[in-house]
Amino acid sequence: MKKQLLEQTKKEFAEKEKILKQVENNLKSKIDGKSLKSFERIRKYMKGKSRYIDRGIVNAHLDFEPITSLIAKKQKFFIISGKNPSTSLHLGHYALFKFLLELQRLGAKIIIPLTNDESYVDGKVNSLNEGKKIASENIAKDIVAMGFDPRQTSIFVHSDFLELYRLSIYYGNFINNSQVNQIFGDRSANTPSKMFYRGAVQMTSILMPQLKEFGGPQNVLVPVAVDQHPYVLLTRDVAKKCKLVPPSEIVIEFLLNLENPAEKMSSSRPDSAIFLDDSEKDIERKIMKAYTGSVSSLEGHRRLGAIPEICPVFQTLRFHHGDTAYVEETYQKYKSGKLLATELKRIVVEFVLKMLKEQRRKRKKVDCNMIEKFILKKKIE
Amino acid sequence: MKKQLLEQTKKEFAEKEKILKQVENNLKSKIDGKSLKSFERIRKYMKGKSRYIDRGIVNAHLDFEPITSLIAKKQKFFIISGKNPSTSLHLGHYALFKFLLELQRLGAKIIIPLTNDESYVDGKVNSLNEGKKIASENIAKDIVAMGFDPRQTSIFVHSDFLELYRLSIYYGNFINNSQVNQIFGDRSANTPSKMFYRGAVQMTSILMPQLKEFGGPQNVLVPVAVDQHPYVLLTRDVAKKCKLVPPSEIVIEFLLNLENPAEKMSSSRPDSAIFLDDSEKDIERKIMKAYTGSVSSLEGHRRLGAIPEICPVFQTLRFHHGDTAYVEETYQKYKSGKLLATELKRIVVEFVLKMLKEQRRKRKKVDCNMIEKFILKKKIE
Repeated sequence: MKKQLLEQTKKEFAEKEKILKQVENNLKSKIDGKSLKSFERIRKYMKGKSRYIDRGIVNAHLDFEPITSLIAKKQKFFIISGKNPSTSLHLGHYALFKFLLELQRLGAKIIIPLTNDESYVDGKVNSLNEGKKIASENIAKDIVAMGFDPRQTSIFVHSDFLELYRLSIYYGNFINNSQVNQIFGDRSANTPSKMFYRGAVQMTSILMPQLKEFGGPQNVLVPVAVDQHPYVLLTRDVAKKCKLVPPSEIVIEFLLNLENPAEKMSSSRPDSAIFLDDSEKDIERKIMKAYTGSVSSLEGHRRLGAIPEICPVFQTLRFHHGDTAYVEETYQKYKSGKLLATELKRIVVEFVLKMLKEQRRKRKKVDCNMIEKFILKKKIE
Repeated sequence: MKKQLLEQTKKEFAEKEKILKQVENNLKSKIDGKSLKSFERIRKYMKGKSRYIDRGIVNAHLDFEPITSLIAKKQKFFIISGKNPSTSLHLGHYALFKFLLELQRLGAKIIIPLTNDESYVDGKVNSLNEGKKIASENIAKDIVAMGFDPRQTSIFVHSDFLELYRLSIYYGNFINNSQVNQIFGDRSANTPSKMFYRGAVQMTSILMPQLKEFGGPQNVLVPVAVDQHPYVLLTRDVAKKCKLVPPSEIVIEFLLNLENPAEKMSSSRPDSAIFLDDSEKDIERKIMKAYTGSVSSLEGHRRLGAIPEICPVFQTLRFHHGDTAYVEETYQKYKSGKLLATELKRIVVEFVLKMLKEQRRKRKKVDCNMIEKFILKKKIE
């Protein structure tokens, strides 16, 4: 290898290592062992129960212990996990819902709010009805197709479940606007509707399963990305004030942005993620041009290896492939430089196409009657 | 009259004149002839149509002209006028509803939101249900007893008409929190629920009659106290953005606080107002100890006269007595010092007792079925 190229390659690799540190640090800096704990001990205890836990995709928690003991006793617990319906699901959401499916097999009753009010207040759709349409005609279909148990899973579109707003008037008076602004920054809550959504409605969704209509005060688990942790803390405070059980939290690693691992996937940049309804051509194109954990020179890659941790292409395999041994083997080959980035991309294109073909096949079978069985219809007093 | 007493009496009278200026100035300073106009011209035009207009209790307006021409053409228009249900109605509210009744005879379809969410967010009741109970078991009864036409009048409790909240999510995203804080001051909107109520729900009530379910964009009139004028301006801005007709405004003089004409009546000071369900004994007690427009020395009163404009006792007569000539005559006798404050109080006690006896008689006849005819039940898309 020429000296100049080697220098350049080392520089490129060092840049990637910097990104790795940045990505890792984002989580580590928030695990303080008190308000947020590492998931390591529980991971060992729960070995073999969940692919997402085993692979370290669940990486921190607050107060998860009551949930582990409910699982051990084969008792039920609630999970609340919403989705903002401005686009179809992408592979990141799809992974989260697969994880929820694992938790359902461990006893979780799952409530999935489709937050079309969030889509509207953030300007991602022009009306509540536009968000509702995406929620019911697109997202709910994909979720139902995944095989959730309709007796243990409820889906609702926020603006269709109006009692949520009445409850939100109640709970949203237990905190101050300044607490909301501190968590989300001023611009995310700068209108009365945004303030109410962020400071009241979202929180109320999390607290709702403890109303007597759902069985009264009980353990509820909320899976979040690490940046939502302060919001869980705020919700726990309100729960205490209202004599409810403070909800438990698990922090989930999010699938990397295909274009830039240091940024979140974004619906305003469609090439940052693969959506469940992308065409085969688009899927191939997005993966083939994706950022990788490998340097640009072939020789350099063989010599220095890759960093799979910051490679969205490898992470797609880690988040979705069913065979842990195969994922581990691919990790080693890629990290050591034996497997090339282009080879990895080919593998992942083929894998994703097959996986999504299967999802679409199931989705085609979903009709309105099937979705109807999932829709939350409780009357709240 | 002894010199010392005369001096003292003159000083007392000067104090009362100061309060008069203060009360008058509160309104006058806001009438700029553009965003808020004096009602004088329209008063002349509408002479004989409304006791409250004739007596100058309606004293300013914005964009009332379209309403006068609808009245002239005997066409319908909407009025929105709400009540926060934390206490029973007092004589100030009662006067406002009597005025609405006059406007109904001139063609108004009246919508009366009972804002139990407001009572809750402001801590005047402990739950939405507590406010709802006061609204439906107490306030709605008195309103229905007054003789509104059930075909032209709708009453609803905010937390029972949940579509209002969905609409509020929509309209409440057209303004900024800072605009709300500017109007109400930081403390009146410092929680997400308060911000949503003040910045979105209240405004949505005013805009709602222009939805297609109520007949589409049209003239709506809002009667307010002068301090709510900036909120009407904000609502008009949102109406324009949403291609609705900016609502018209009339400013109503409010009945004076029995204890202090410079302050508002307040439910936290029950002696500041007479409530429709006060006992006869309480009514007499409250009036007999009320502040008056007259100086404390009898001789001084005969010499200097009284200031009926700042006298809550006289104002009770002006707001409620049916005979304008009698009110005018009493005004002159009191102002000139011929009628003593105690004599006036006796007259007003007797008058109020008789008026409220009649209201209670009618109220006793109101049953659930009658109220039910008034309850707004529209489905909003």
